[in-house]
Amino acid sequence: MLTESLARFIADTPDAPETTRQMLRLSLLDWAACGIAGADEPVARICREMVCEEAGLGEASLFGTAERVPARGAALVNGATSHALDYDDTHFAHIGHPSVAVLPAALALAQGAGASGADLQAAALTGIEVSIRVGVWLGRSHYQTGFHQTGTAGAFGAAAAGARLMGFDADQSAAALGLVATRASGLKSQFGTMGKPYNAGLAAANGVEAVLLVAKGFVPNPEGLECAQGFGPTHAGEANEGAALEGLGEAWLFDGISHKFHACCHGLHATLEALGGMNRPAPEDVAAVAITTHPRWMTVCNQPAPETGLGAKFSYRMVAAMALSGVSTAALESYSTANCADPALRALRERVTVTADEALSETQARVAITLKDGTVLDAAHDLDAPMPVEERKARIEVKAAALIGEARAAQIWALIEEEASPDAMGRALVP
Amino acid sequence: MLTESLARFIADTPDAPETTRQMLRLSLLDWAACGIAGADEPVARICREMVCEEAGLGEASLFGTAERVPARGAALVNGATSHALDYDDTHFAHIGHPSVAVLPAALALAQGAGASGADLQAAALTGIEVSIRVGVWLGRSHYQTGFHQTGTAGAFGAAAAGARLMGFDADQSAAALGLVATRASGLKSQFGTMGKPYNAGLAAANGVEAVLLVAKGFVPNPEGLECAQGFGPTHAGEANEGAALEGLGEAWLFDGISHKFHACCHGLHATLEALGGMNRPAPEDVAAVAITTHPRWMTVCNQPAPETGLGAKFSYRMVAAMALSGVSTAALESYSTANCADPALRALRERVTVTADEALSETQARVAITLKDGTVLDAAHDLDAPMPVEERKARIEVKAAALIGEARAAQIWALIEEEASPDAMGRALVP
Repeated sequence: MLTESLARFIADTPDAPETTRQMLRLSLLDWAACGIAGADEPVARICREMVCEEAGLGEASLFGTAERVPARGAALVNGATSHALDYDDTHFAHIGHPSVAVLPAALALAQGAGASGADLQAAALTGIEVSIRVGVWLGRSHYQTGFHQTGTAGAFGAAAAGARLMGFDADQSAAALGLVATRASGLKSQFGTMGKPYNAGLAAANGVEAVLLVAKGFVPNPEGLECAQGFGPTHAGEANEGAALEGLGEAWLFDGISHKFHACCHGLHATLEALGGMNRPAPEDVAAVAITTHPRWMTVCNQPAPETGLGAKFSYRMVAAMALSGVSTAALESYSTANCADPALRALRERVTVTADEALSETQARVAITLKDGTVLDAAHDLDAPMPVEERKARIEVKAAALIGEARAAQIWALIEEEASPDAMGRALVP
Repeated sequence: MLTESLARFIADTPDAPETTRQMLRLSLLDWAACGIAGADEPVARICREMVCEEAGLGEASLFGTAERVPARGAALVNGATSHALDYDDTHFAHIGHPSVAVLPAALALAQGAGASGADLQAAALTGIEVSIRVGVWLGRSHYQTGFHQTGTAGAFGAAAAGARLMGFDADQSAAALGLVATRASGLKSQFGTMGKPYNAGLAAANGVEAVLLVAKGFVPNPEGLECAQGFGPTHAGEANEGAALEGLGEAWLFDGISHKFHACCHGLHATLEALGGMNRPAPEDVAAVAITTHPRWMTVCNQPAPETGLGAKFSYRMVAAMALSGVSTAALESYSTANCADPALRALRERVTVTADEALSETQARVAITLKDGTVLDAAHDLDAPMPVEERKARIEVKAAALIGEARAAQIWALIEEEASPDAMGRALVP
């Protein structure tokens, strides 16, 4: 039933509401900015070098070079590249990064097939929605066992996007999902290494390969996802079919996507949002800053006195000092050894305390700032709170500008808005 | 400890005894014959078409075409192609098909690297040994849960062969094993479809990719195989470390490899071997044939009256009638609609009965032939019984000749014996 329902949804996706399609455009911009900004990361260079040495059919664009390569290779490279900074979007229903798995597959196949820009965006939306729903079906046990939903659920989403782009009927769409079931992979035990972004590349490349093979007549087990000893049963899947299919075709789980607005550990974001919502006092007026957060973050991102940019990305005290001093927490270069050594920032972070509170959820934080005159300013934030689409757009534009410059961000946004051809989109990603 | 030990073994493989190296040569011939004979199977054509359309760097040879492609693509195609007939070698310690996973990776990387023929054979042996030992470490629970060891353990073996070929040190070898851990995959729920041979291609291609990336400086979690939430723990692995490492570097588990001498379901082979060991009576003298086998095969390969070649591959009665009539059970074309319709064969198969006996193992069978004069001939066979290497060589030569013709089989054997260059080996595989 799961694959059958998803396959019908892929073959005949209903029109999405304008707000959902706007959200997709925003994720496209966010993804493009992350990929362009990540193109010099070592994992990106390594994967790109391998695929460029293979060369071959110049159908699909790559972040970081004007060379074009076959779709499978482009999907691998662009997936790894756009996830390299870990700054791309996240969906918390299954805890996965749908854009970095699905968009590279959709773009590469759209370039190869000469699809229209509208078809590319529609297929990307179909694929992302399928990845989230497969992720919900696999559930928390799948994630907790050690599978990286970005790689696993993402592969099904990439296949779904490709199936939609190629105009597959429901049977072919089921075949693509069934085939990718034997190849979908990605482990969380690679976190902290180049293996994490690579997992996003795997998802994209696996989806592309499944679609190309099914298009040529490959006949797999079309129920490879949920059959006995299928992907779900063998990968600690919960088989939450009710949740996975609820409202399919009417409600879009993709609407709940989160975008990162700070280039640091996700555990710090609620705190930074709370700070961002306050009238910022002058740093010299601040006597004390008290941050309250969920206990699980205390071992993840509570480095008291980081000395490096990487350390700063995991430090409540440092990012709070940066935010209160007007240093952009959205910009990659703010997380630097120089800022960690800055006397004013060091003095301010010494006045920050961090406390855990079980009563908060993982997405919540509270901040109380005591000024030298005794005034107390406080604020709280929940990352799960909805954000109006116009506010989201403005913030993603700021983020994209911080990553790739205002002009380039505006140019890419214009291409997205006018539903430019996949080739035009591809050209906009290269240096 | 597991990866560390395997990595040291890869970086510094001790010389294998001549009997083991002879076994490797025999598996190379067996593999080449299976791949050449399988090149027109649909799964082979489909995968080859995809990879040839990608084109690119012409470094590695493909079964079925003179075109050459990048190593990753060649590994995928040649893995799927050589497993397409399901006639390649098997290792029962872990239940996997090591040659179809490892040899395509070794050959493709050896061609790409311009390695010597001796290096190719040595690396292939290292890789196969690692695949079997990783498979033993993963154990029966891994297989019973639904993982296809050919795809999973095979990927580690393919990576090991590549690491050896590239001259990796122990750290790099560990990195290759650690990286392929996040990509190794393959499900048994694809059995009965093109997905089964495809899993062999996945193993080979995943191993090649891991090696190419590590050679360029990719830094993964080097303990991705056995660490917390590593490949073993997330894939129902038993972590049989003692068994996996026992005698590593001194004893070669590869010595226990089985080659298929009949182009039909493995459940029929003990029966056919028992029949082959008897003085064959004239078919018209046979009154009754009683076959006794392990109960598990009764639902697998006991079709009483098949009408098609595929049905004949799963029929005790049919293959017994063929063997008693002198029809080669080694030749693919013997399993035909015409033979199923042949009046003499049909008459003979009507006189065959099949009975299950719990006392037999899965590798054992008994046959009793009652002649019209009342004489009873009987025989038994256990596939696990050792076979002298000269007998094995003679039988693989007969099999290879049946698959690809005597001249071609002899030519390939000569290349293997003289340790011809990987490119010469590659050229010998193409039409």
